[in-house]
Amino acid sequence: MPITANDPQRRSWIQVEKDSDFPIQNIPFGVFLTRDDVITIGTRIGNTAIDLGALHQLGYFEGIPLTDDIFLQDSLNDFISDGKKTWRLVRNRIAELFDINNPELRDNEEHKHIVLFTLDEIEMQLPVQIGDYTDFYSSKEHATNVGKMFRDPENALLPNWLHIPVGYHGRSSSIVPSGIPVRRPLGQTLPPGATTPVFGPSARVDFELEMAFITTDANQLGEPIPVAEAEDYIFGMVLFNDWSARDIQKWEYVPLGPFLAKNFASSISPWIVTLDALEPFRVAGPKQDPAPLPYLQYEGKKSFDIHLEVSLTPENGEQVTVSKSNFRYMYWTMAQQLAHHTVNGCNVISGDMMGSGTISGPTPDSYGSMLELSWGGKKPLKMKDGTERSFIEDGDTVTMKGFCRNEHVRIGFGEVSTKLLPAFGGKRK
Amino acid sequence: MPITANDPQRRSWIQVEKDSDFPIQNIPFGVFLTRDDVITIGTRIGNTAIDLGALHQLGYFEGIPLTDDIFLQDSLNDFISDGKKTWRLVRNRIAELFDINNPELRDNEEHKHIVLFTLDEIEMQLPVQIGDYTDFYSSKEHATNVGKMFRDPENALLPNWLHIPVGYHGRSSSIVPSGIPVRRPLGQTLPPGATTPVFGPSARVDFELEMAFITTDANQLGEPIPVAEAEDYIFGMVLFNDWSARDIQKWEYVPLGPFLAKNFASSISPWIVTLDALEPFRVAGPKQDPAPLPYLQYEGKKSFDIHLEVSLTPENGEQVTVSKSNFRYMYWTMAQQLAHHTVNGCNVISGDMMGSGTISGPTPDSYGSMLELSWGGKKPLKMKDGTERSFIEDGDTVTMKGFCRNEHVRIGFGEVSTKLLPAFGGKRK
Repeated sequence: MPITANDPQRRSWIQVEKDSDFPIQNIPFGVFLTRDDVITIGTRIGNTAIDLGALHQLGYFEGIPLTDDIFLQDSLNDFISDGKKTWRLVRNRIAELFDINNPELRDNEEHKHIVLFTLDEIEMQLPVQIGDYTDFYSSKEHATNVGKMFRDPENALLPNWLHIPVGYHGRSSSIVPSGIPVRRPLGQTLPPGATTPVFGPSARVDFELEMAFITTDANQLGEPIPVAEAEDYIFGMVLFNDWSARDIQKWEYVPLGPFLAKNFASSISPWIVTLDALEPFRVAGPKQDPAPLPYLQYEGKKSFDIHLEVSLTPENGEQVTVSKSNFRYMYWTMAQQLAHHTVNGCNVISGDMMGSGTISGPTPDSYGSMLELSWGGKKPLKMKDGTERSFIEDGDTVTMKGFCRNEHVRIGFGEVSTKLLPAFGGKRK
Repeated sequence: MPITANDPQRRSWIQVEKDSDFPIQNIPFGVFLTRDDVITIGTRIGNTAIDLGALHQLGYFEGIPLTDDIFLQDSLNDFISDGKKTWRLVRNRIAELFDINNPELRDNEEHKHIVLFTLDEIEMQLPVQIGDYTDFYSSKEHATNVGKMFRDPENALLPNWLHIPVGYHGRSSSIVPSGIPVRRPLGQTLPPGATTPVFGPSARVDFELEMAFITTDANQLGEPIPVAEAEDYIFGMVLFNDWSARDIQKWEYVPLGPFLAKNFASSISPWIVTLDALEPFRVAGPKQDPAPLPYLQYEGKKSFDIHLEVSLTPENGEQVTVSKSNFRYMYWTMAQQLAHHTVNGCNVISGDMMGSGTISGPTPDSYGSMLELSWGGKKPLKMKDGTERSFIEDGDTVTMKGFCRNEHVRIGFGEVSTKLLPAFGGKRK
């Protein structure tokens, strides 16, 4: 079925600013609370949010096999379970309905009043109920930088790294949408030279610039997904800030991996941009040498050209861009990650989220974490108020943005923006 | 509120065999499919399953604040969210209702026909929808054994182990109840002496004898749970077989921990035994030296004397007991694990599951995995048919049992019993 929603010539009767992340070619999916305190599934064109639950009730999705309440839910999980064909039918239909030449809804003021919202009338929620969250470690530059700092500069990349899309399980419950502030974690750290740990607020809170993909029901327990089919089970992507506490991580992570250094919070952008919408921005991934094992070999372009940037805003201060990177730097593709994740029979279901790992580029200004940007604190970054940052300070806001662009269209992710609060010191609620 | 359900003198009008795991003092909670193909929440006395959904509809829980459909669900999550006071009220009421001297239900044949089932009329399901699953690594003996084999025999225990209840995140989706067979995983391994990995079925599939606890909604994101309060948020425990593929683990686990070596499956016993029911079996945990940091220090007895055993049954062969261990060997208590897990503000919710880590005792016959029992394959175990086992073979069934016993009563967990199937080699369904 053609993705007619991607037609680059189409314009909408909803006004879209130049350089908007959300032209009519995007049609992302999210969940929001409306001005009437109703939770609904929606999409967005320009700065207008569209209530898909109401649109469906008004009959605008007639002919598409959808249950009556599919959009009147507090998560996209059931819609995602409906599968790729249905996602495509719905996106195509939305594009058609909001096409500048289609009077159906354009000229129905009553219906428009019901389904359209300005952004300040809604409150974005977590778009999916995340069953399991996995984080990969798929940027060669990031793995090399971390290996140089934490382990052996001469053998920074571990022997398995070029053979395995290394990944580990993370915590789902503490994933929050953009805008929800995050507390500096308390925890154990080992001061330099000490042999006994101390307890207190982490002194090395960091962001990690990542993207994450969201899956549909993919396989039965025990049955691998071939790499060639893997993308069929990917609904879409979000920006992902994998908050990290480097000092806690250093003391706890051997031998079973990061735990409290990561699970205090992760933040995502609230609009899921579908893989269909990203289709025009496919690029080849980096050449893989040595060739991976056959179950990880694929044909065609399975990476995406997504510009990414991170900025830091001190409390009452000015925003400074601290990193510019690109999703295409990833060594392992999402298809390889998903094929690897299931090769042992691990079952993947609707709403599972898989992080890319920190996306660092080849140059120091494209590194995806403060750990790398400040090289472990040795090269602090200058803020406009004259202060310096090696890691994130209380009151700082970290904002990540991402977008694709070609000569015709710009498809973006909006942002994930999160303020860091001081460590917990009060009483429990 | 007293736990009257624990009265050791009470007898039930339901017949209970001597040495049953499920006397009227147990009253565990589970989810099952009935002969009428209805999913319900239930309990068990002796070999009789009791439909709590039907009991509630018949009015037997009048006076206890419960929603009408609290037991007519496919998971215990909502009931667990109701909190400790409600769990206790319900258990006390069930004990009273099935007391041999109470004619209320005993003499109502019509109602008994509705609510009681023999075990072959029901099919046990997963008792909770598991949000996040965490696995700890809290047996000193196990950590020492593994350290000796995988790392340095002279410094088997890593420097952080005596300070941190080391844990890591696992996969929820692949946790299955007792009786569901598990496939041998495919994956990458590095043959001895090789520098390039090969792909194929794991040759070192292992069990890990664990127990897991299930939590209720415990804290808001950002707010730690003090160790003194932690047990209030633990609903109960199950037996847990943390299936592991040692050869896959060895190649993949540095630096981010085990991933595909674990997430192909974990198996649990289907009846959750409440912490209340285990109250009579509290014991002190091992002395902790050095003293842990203050946030991990506690008073009183916070371990439990739970006898554990593992047996192995070859296909068409005879069952052999391969290990006898005890939950009390754990160095870190559940209260410490939960306090540690949340000290950074990580939020814990109803239905989260936390595994103890392999429970190995001090003697070689009390080790909790084949890796340790066969000492990495150097001391294979003899089966009754003359064959040997270093790890688990296709067709083998691994069965774990657990129970507490004092002079008055035996409280057991039933079993988690799982057959290992050959690696996937067919077509996907």
